[in-house]
Amino acid sequence: MKQQQTPAALRHSIRSGAMGTNTSGLCPGFVQGNLCILPADWAHDFLKFCQLNPKPCPIIGMSAMPGDYHLPSLGVDLDIRTDIPQYRIFENGVAVEQVTDITAHWRDDLIAFVLGCSFSFEEALLADGLEVRNLSEGVNVPMYRTNISCQEAGPFKGNMVVSMRPFKAADAIRAIQICSRFPSVHGAPIHFGDPSQIGINNLAAPDFGDAVTVNADEVPVFWACGVTPQVAVEKAKPPFCITHAPGCMLVTDKLNSCLAIM
Amino acid sequence: MKQQQTPAALRHSIRSGAMGTNTSGLCPGFVQGNLCILPADWAHDFLKFCQLNPKPCPIIGMSAMPGDYHLPSLGVDLDIRTDIPQYRIFENGVAVEQVTDITAHWRDDLIAFVLGCSFSFEEALLADGLEVRNLSEGVNVPMYRTNISCQEAGPFKGNMVVSMRPFKAADAIRAIQICSRFPSVHGAPIHFGDPSQIGINNLAAPDFGDAVTVNADEVPVFWACGVTPQVAVEKAKPPFCITHAPGCMLVTDKLNSCLAIM
Repeated sequence: MKQQQTPAALRHSIRSGAMGTNTSGLCPGFVQGNLCILPADWAHDFLKFCQLNPKPCPIIGMSAMPGDYHLPSLGVDLDIRTDIPQYRIFENGVAVEQVTDITAHWRDDLIAFVLGCSFSFEEALLADGLEVRNLSEGVNVPMYRTNISCQEAGPFKGNMVVSMRPFKAADAIRAIQICSRFPSVHGAPIHFGDPSQIGINNLAAPDFGDAVTVNADEVPVFWACGVTPQVAVEKAKPPFCITHAPGCMLVTDKLNSCLAIM
Repeated sequence: MKQQQTPAALRHSIRSGAMGTNTSGLCPGFVQGNLCILPADWAHDFLKFCQLNPKPCPIIGMSAMPGDYHLPSLGVDLDIRTDIPQYRIFENGVAVEQVTDITAHWRDDLIAFVLGCSFSFEEALLADGLEVRNLSEGVNVPMYRTNISCQEAGPFKGNMVVSMRPFKAADAIRAIQICSRFPSVHGAPIHFGDPSQIGINNLAAPDFGDAVTVNADEVPVFWACGVTPQVAVEKAKPPFCITHAPGCMLVTDKLNSCLAIM
């Protein structure tokens, strides 16, 4: 019964190589996070970029010092080198390898950042009885590049990427209320309605993920998306970088409910 | 300097007959309320109607027992018979008289209800730097009859009346967050966007109040409105009823900030 597994047990299973796939739906109730590992001489600017753009880049944990692969605030025995099912290694902005363990690639100048993800607020929306279209249609959430500039920090810059979920207006109002409680997992939407107002020309052709049905009585609602920092990192082309592979997240010991500010 | 006047001083001035006009903008920071006075044998159903429809009919105070014209929770020396600038007296649903004092009309079977009003949340929107169109255009907020049925209680029934304020989407999201903090003054909007979805055919022709400009990059946002119980009372045609005259509200000692639930 994998859904009753604790996050620690799941991480041990991943660490041992017994589980190497998508973490979506695993350990319901617990926070999952995006991973970005950078050399220390790039980490300060990345941290500043996240601080300046908290809606797309909400940091929920980071290495206490360069070379530290434990993040005890996210899991007592967590080892960021082994506890994610699939990692992607980038050199100069280009993906060069996908691996299940980065112990051999670890360096004493690396800093790991864990960023909040939409799984947490989607769970809160479902718990309130709302339909989350990408979940009910069994696809990845549609994501779009916008014309909204992020605040720059050194080499890190670019436009915000957003995810979209359609709702009837009354449900959109409820979704805004619910997500406002979760500022560390993208928080309230940043836009709804006319996509062209934020530079999106065709809802049916997302830049990432899959298109979903938008019914005539629904409005598209847009959230800041964790792909934003990934795009900024790809553009900045650091000599070395490690991320999680899409859908293969870090499962933490933190309860989603603990992220609620009220 | 009338804006520095305390609510108690303003009520004394109204009581003495020195101030008989609109209370809009007076005693900023303090809650103003709508008044509805009914005979005790109608009051139970009205109370139930408000309880079933809290968004349009948020009760913030009522007589402790029939005949009681003091509402100490809203103002220590408050006298509901004299402290409102203009009252309207209805017989069998028809307005028969407008007076500045209802002492001569008071009866020992009357129960006064005070309902929250949009002034409180408009103040919170302004304090957050949002433009409230009806205020910036110096007109009454536009109000519309909808096709949304209220829950019935005895003779009290009817469709919800809504007020409308236009915003850009990002400001509408912020307005939803702000108003969610104030459930006792209509709370979060009940709809935004396509007016026809709630039975409104022409935004330019409000059923009450005045039309306001809606710019091309804005969406209309709709709040449950305190005219809803007035319409329900007019339809129910109680033999006797007293309300405030439009814009001539009860100014209470309660701070708007005290209505915030978080």
